[in-house]
Amino acid sequence: MLVLGIDPGTAVTGYGLVTAGDGNVASRSAPLAAMRLLECGVIRTRAHDPLPDRLREIHEGVAELIARHRPTHLAVENTFHARNPRTTLALGQARGVVLLAGASAGLVIREYPPAEVKKAITGTGSATKLQVQFMLARMLRLKDAPQPADASDGVAVAVTCLLVAHIERLSAHAELTGSSGNGVRVTPRHAPRIA
Amino acid sequence: MLVLGIDPGTAVTGYGLVTAGDGNVASRSAPLAAMRLLECGVIRTRAHDPLPDRLREIHEGVAELIARHRPTHLAVENTFHARNPRTTLALGQARGVVLLAGASAGLVIREYPPAEVKKAITGTGSATKLQVQFMLARMLRLKDAPQPADASDGVAVAVTCLLVAHIERLSAHAELTGSSGNGVRVTPRHAPRIA
Repeated sequence: MLVLGIDPGTAVTGYGLVTAGDGNVASRSAPLAAMRLLECGVIRTRAHDPLPDRLREIHEGVAELIARHRPTHLAVENTFHARNPRTTLALGQARGVVLLAGASAGLVIREYPPAEVKKAITGTGSATKLQVQFMLARMLRLKDAPQPADASDGVAVAVTCLLVAHIERLSAHAELTGSSGNGVRVTPRHAPRIA
Repeated sequence: MLVLGIDPGTAVTGYGLVTAGDGNVASRSAPLAAMRLLECGVIRTRAHDPLPDRLREIHEGVAELIARHRPTHLAVENTFHARNPRTTLALGQARGVVLLAGASAGLVIREYPPAEVKKAITGTGSATKLQVQFMLARMLRLKDAPQPADASDGVAVAVTCLLVAHIERLSAHAELTGSSGNGVRVTPRHAPRIA
């Protein structure tokens, strides 16, 4: 599983490519141990350029990353400014061309609101940016948090996608095997006896 | 001059293709007489489809219109819902992929807020939808207003682009010739004498 995480913006779009093996499904820590940051960075556009050209640069930048790394998943931060509709419109435009790039490449696409990203990584939806960055550096065994901050936001949403997918696999595994997923073996109440 | 006018939306994107010759610049009514509706309609997406697929359908629909008609200009309505940030975000996403299609094809792109569209067509920024549709039908010599209403919005923004371009040409002509643009010849105050 290779995830391209994107935090879209008209001026700066942050991205991170994070991979993890499917690992040992029975072990909770498996995806953390196998998670690896391949690349992160930002796509910057010039404020004085016409908006359509900036959107084209964002679209081409994301399409280039997809062509080069061939991720299986695209994870996009799903946010809006409740106060400023102009900012929200601009954000929507950038998101639109990012989602389009993923759809054109046939990727599995997931969207996460900022609180869900924070919660997946730090355990609380009200974590600060610094707390998220600290946890990201630990999870990915980096000396420092991914830089710049916008790239870090892209990495965070990619890691969220991997963690959520792992939890989903754990649940499916628990249902299939009757394991509770925390290592305690449970016997289904009306389990058929196997000879 | 051939303009593809678009009123973007995630569910329904209205469009209209309107052409006008450059005409006799000195005559104010020239572009109105030469204006002609080539095609109008809507690109509809299914509410139950994933958002990225819907954005791809909008993008492909607009790209197909551009490939088939080869317009010179793309005119897009520039609107947002001040009250509902989710609606504004969705609108931004649809707009983003529309603008991208225009930028990729190298079209001249213009954006007009709804009040400017109403003002260009009816003379007042507070006109009703019905008033705009009535004037559109007259300007384009149609029996009825373009149908459905969303297609009509696309036609309206295309016509706005043509009218604004005509006014710009009139101004440029007036500056070049010293004509006031309303047919009255003015003599510059400190004009050099020509022998």
